Amino acid sequence: MRGKFITFEGPEGCGKSTHSKALAERLRARGIETILTREPGGTPLAEKIRALVREETGDAPVASAETLLFLAARAQNVARAVLPALERGAWVLCDRFADSTFAYQGFGRGFDLAELERLNAFATGGLAPDLTILLDVPPEISRERLGTRQNATGEKADRMENAGRLFHKAVRDGFLALAALPENAGRFAVIDSSGGMDRVSAAIDAAVERLI
Amino acid sequence: MRGKFITFEGPEGCGKSTHSKALAERLRARGIETILTREPGGTPLAEKIRALVREETGDAPVASAETLLFLAARAQNVARAVLPALERGAWVLCDRFADSTFAYQGFGRGFDLAELERLNAFATGGLAPDLTILLDVPPEISRERLGTRQNATGEKADRMENAGRLFHKAVRDGFLALAALPENAGRFAVIDSSGGMDRVSAAIDAAVERLI
Repeated sequence: MRGKFITFEGPEGCGKSTHSKALAERLRARGIETILTREPGGTPLAEKIRALVREETGDAPVASAETLLFLAARAQNVARAVLPALERGAWVLCDRFADSTFAYQGFGRGFDLAELERLNAFATGGLAPDLTILLDVPPEISRERLGTRQNATGEKADRMENAGRLFHKAVRDGFLALAALPENAGRFAVIDSSGGMDRVSAAIDAAVERLI
Repeated sequence: MRGKFITFEGPEGCGKSTHSKALAERLRARGIETILTREPGGTPLAEKIRALVREETGDAPVASAETLLFLAARAQNVARAVLPALERGAWVLCDRFADSTFAYQGFGRGFDLAELERLNAFATGGLAPDLTILLDVPPEISRERLGTRQNATGEKADRMENAGRLFHKAVRDGFLALAALPENAGRFAVIDSSGGMDRVSAAIDAAVERLI
């Protein structure tokens, strides 16, 4: 039986990476083979693309090149990592997927959503998540969390994180708008991620339970 | 007045890079500001993408990722190098452009041409060449020229060059099919590149004369 494909989405600092790791552990504890991957990334080539798209250089990608690089990384990760795992019955958790393209490059950069959907279908071959967990946080909280993480780890803000406040507001609103689309109603679980770890984990488990 | 945009196309070893350099010199000698660029490449980011797409690694791009990487490099080169030059009146010669996508990823890899055209329009914003010089050579000659170049320079065959004989035959036939499309009739100059340098240069000059 084919495994389940769960994507984590949301603005910077919403807790996607923490909560996707924690869910992977809980699923494994139940005996479910679970692969955790992220976008852009997940294969050696896709991780190199990640570096190109996120680093601050004198030749930052223009919006169309940025979009195409994210899609190239997705195409590689889907073909080499996600699909083979699903086909052998493993579950795959992915930190960002197609909805990030729609939120960041559609609502954030202003590209037409229908056009992005066609481009995305070319990259994914039509693969869609069984469940998308949208971790929603207000911009004040996501900024604060990013700052805390950067202070704790010494890591610098990358090019996407450095985009302005209005861009990040458009992205957050975009995610909520995507979740509200009638065709996405069965797929999205929108979870307020400004609460404590335990409450958010419980809400994620409730959404995942529907798949088991 | 906007400059002219001339692309050089053809299979590996057809002489694109030699003849585009030589034409740039002849145009400059006539007092025309001329920029020579290549695909994938032309900006620091696009050159990094070139390395990703051409190097032989254990994680070679799947066909869709390969296509999207070429398009990302094109988007960056068009926005940062080609369009600004054309707009200030310079002529731009480009070693490979959209027709390589149609020939290699369409005729070679089997993607739908109409879909590739949509993807390409996203990358270029609709920019099309004023003239496309297709340097045609039979596969035996292009293989031989590649071998001679590799022996002379010590460079290794890259991932595209290493694709099999049938692939390269499909690409060459694809270029000829593209040139024969009614909508491309005014744009293509198909030149037999198996002859000597002088004869090919004269044929290129005759095609370019129409633009002046």
